[in-house]
Amino acid sequence: MVKVSNNSVLVIIDVQKGFDDPKWGKRNNPDAENVMASVLSEFRKHMLTVIHVRHDSRKPESLLKEGKPTFAFKDEVKPVEGETIITKHVNSALIGTNLEEILRKMGDPNVYYMGITTDHCVSTTARMSGNLGFKSYVIEDACAAFETRDQHGETIPAETIHNVNLASIDGEFAQVIRSEDLVF
Amino acid sequence: MVKVSNNSVLVIIDVQKGFDDPKWGKRNNPDAENVMASVLSEFRKHMLTVIHVRHDSRKPESLLKEGKPTFAFKDEVKPVEGETIITKHVNSALIGTNLEEILRKMGDPNVYYMGITTDHCVSTTARMSGNLGFKSYVIEDACAAFETRDQHGETIPAETIHNVNLASIDGEFAQVIRSEDLVF
Repeated sequence: MVKVSNNSVLVIIDVQKGFDDPKWGKRNNPDAENVMASVLSEFRKHMLTVIHVRHDSRKPESLLKEGKPTFAFKDEVKPVEGETIITKHVNSALIGTNLEEILRKMGDPNVYYMGITTDHCVSTTARMSGNLGFKSYVIEDACAAFETRDQHGETIPAETIHNVNLASIDGEFAQVIRSEDLVF
Repeated sequence: MVKVSNNSVLVIIDVQKGFDDPKWGKRNNPDAENVMASVLSEFRKHMLTVIHVRHDSRKPESLLKEGKPTFAFKDEVKPVEGETIITKHVNSALIGTNLEEILRKMGDPNVYYMGITTDHCVSTTARMSGNLGFKSYVIEDACAAFETRDQHGETIPAETIHNVNLASIDGEFAQVIRSEDLVF
């Protein structure tokens, strides 16, 4: 059980329509967006801070490029009036953005991360978040990864990518929890 | 083949005696230190910049705590006169240190990373390095990881931790290469 304190913030990373494209390959955890919707709804109900991070790629051909329909947030996690939107250009939401400043202004917040993909943007942000001294959590069932071809040409299944990346984070950079662990 | 340009820097991460302790569990790639020694020797022979990063834990009980014999660099990669030593306190060598400043002063260097552990300090540093815009490489046979218990209590073998973490980095944050790919 993880008691969600009054000074908590939910950071939702890159849950954009472009990730529905088949080009990314097989994904694990098809239920992630439903879990995210339910976590988001709890944070809103308890008037806690919600920050929406989106990726604006520097590559013009990317599906995650501002101006394209695939840049849009998925319906399950669409921001509402009053919620902060942060646009980033690299994997880490803590590089080239004011996210660190926002978190510092909150004092010593508990920061909950969820989104896509577990191994790239969620993992990199959570690693930096922990190293910058923020008490950080990653909600594992509210994240998802894609299968990945490794440097030797072997395909690693999405579930392995997801699990190993979370294992590498857990206890070192952030606490990896499940959505049902959250107590509001 | 990767041609090592004149503006290249080798960053060796956390190759300290404390990692020989059995408390870390099973490790992969027992030959890593020999490979590191040979890469280091090539960089020195070609008068390229070498930076030694060491971890000084904030936990007094840690083996990687300044003042303890286990804080020392392993013999295979011991710094020589004129090489830079950077001491860090978190996983990323780019947080709380002047490494970024050193790299920026080099202009647009090619940065080669190797060390221990693949999944924690090497991976986190390489992820940030790529996201900060540095052309980054990780030398896979000059890195090593330990087995890891995941958040569900399952043990993931060291070789899986190593491989999956490299697959998650490769092509996104850094290029994962082997020592024999380096051409001086």
